[in-house]
Amino acid sequence: MDIREKHPGKLFVLSGPSGAGKGTICKKLLEETDKLELSVSMTTRNPRKGEEEGVSYFFTDKEAFEENIRRGNLLEYAEVYGNYYGTPKAPVIEKLESGIDVILEIDMQGALKVKENYPGGVFIFILPPSMAELRKRLTGRGTETAEAIELRLGETLKELSYIDKYDYCVVNGVLEEAVARVKAIVVAEHSKVAFTAEELIDSYREEI
Amino acid sequence: MDIREKHPGKLFVLSGPSGAGKGTICKKLLEETDKLELSVSMTTRNPRKGEEEGVSYFFTDKEAFEENIRRGNLLEYAEVYGNYYGTPKAPVIEKLESGIDVILEIDMQGALKVKENYPGGVFIFILPPSMAELRKRLTGRGTETAEAIELRLGETLKELSYIDKYDYCVVNGVLEEAVARVKAIVVAEHSKVAFTAEELIDSYREEI
Repeated sequence: MDIREKHPGKLFVLSGPSGAGKGTICKKLLEETDKLELSVSMTTRNPRKGEEEGVSYFFTDKEAFEENIRRGNLLEYAEVYGNYYGTPKAPVIEKLESGIDVILEIDMQGALKVKENYPGGVFIFILPPSMAELRKRLTGRGTETAEAIELRLGETLKELSYIDKYDYCVVNGVLEEAVARVKAIVVAEHSKVAFTAEELIDSYREEI
Repeated sequence: MDIREKHPGKLFVLSGPSGAGKGTICKKLLEETDKLELSVSMTTRNPRKGEEEGVSYFFTDKEAFEENIRRGNLLEYAEVYGNYYGTPKAPVIEKLESGIDVILEIDMQGALKVKENYPGGVFIFILPPSMAELRKRLTGRGTETAEAIELRLGETLKELSYIDKYDYCVVNGVLEEAVARVKAIVVAEHSKVAFTAEELIDSYREEI
């Protein structure tokens, strides 16, 4: 299975700084769009109540996860508080092969690794409308101190310099508009000559 | 005025074989979309009743047109039955500079010339859903003999090989779907990192 081969489905990677709202956009998109499925992560952490194997996560143990790392079975992975989290390649490729678009919502480090491993993906950077709004959103969560939030904003500014690794950027000011924009990107990507033309032309030629 | 400079508006070139319906798509788009204006052609033919200078066409004489050719003032031009038709560059650039998208509906030869002169344009190939449907549409017009139509279909097949000069292709089966697809392309193009990110990042940096 060549990871660079052309698939009838496309991988859309939604990324961006924490608080930009990529999770909310992703959820809305999945609700409103057919033929678009969320990539399911693999993790070594224990299942929580209500979490379903293969839907919420693929649950596995440390040894098996590390074996997947060694075999190159993951599009990306990271260790967070002693647990592994990663994106298994095979289920993504299977969906793409059967013409389903896959959406992957991920932090910026993860997105850059995915790009190395699947350069055919479409990389979308989700941005807050302003730093002031981002500060407001992070403060509103009530999970971090003011000092931690300022540190995070500084990090965000640094992360912005990676935007040129992405194909598109979408400012998430009004949620519905941001979702509509991502949907437009999905449609446009499927209209690209490089993606779709060859097959079309063959069909006209065969007709005559 | 550097033709390659980046403008806040974008030039969308709709092209494709005769009978694909690019004119109808273009008309619908203009009705439904703000901030999108049609490029006005220049011609040496006489105005017809109801045609308005600067709206239907820029009307001019042969000498002035040829002077425009010599000065490189046209994005493309052609001579048809003894009259010149062309796309003046300056009004297009003015609109792009003021943030208005410009749409240009043109045959394939013209589109390729525009691409040489304004490579920053977005080139969209409009296709009929099948050769059978194209034959039906051309026959339905009642303006050509069956023999002429077959010749034209042969030409169309040849023209299809130029599709890789285009960025996008849109199959015009159901008109509303084709129009929606072109609209999505317009939105996606305005979301491209290369098009929009620099300014955005500057605004975040200034804020902090």
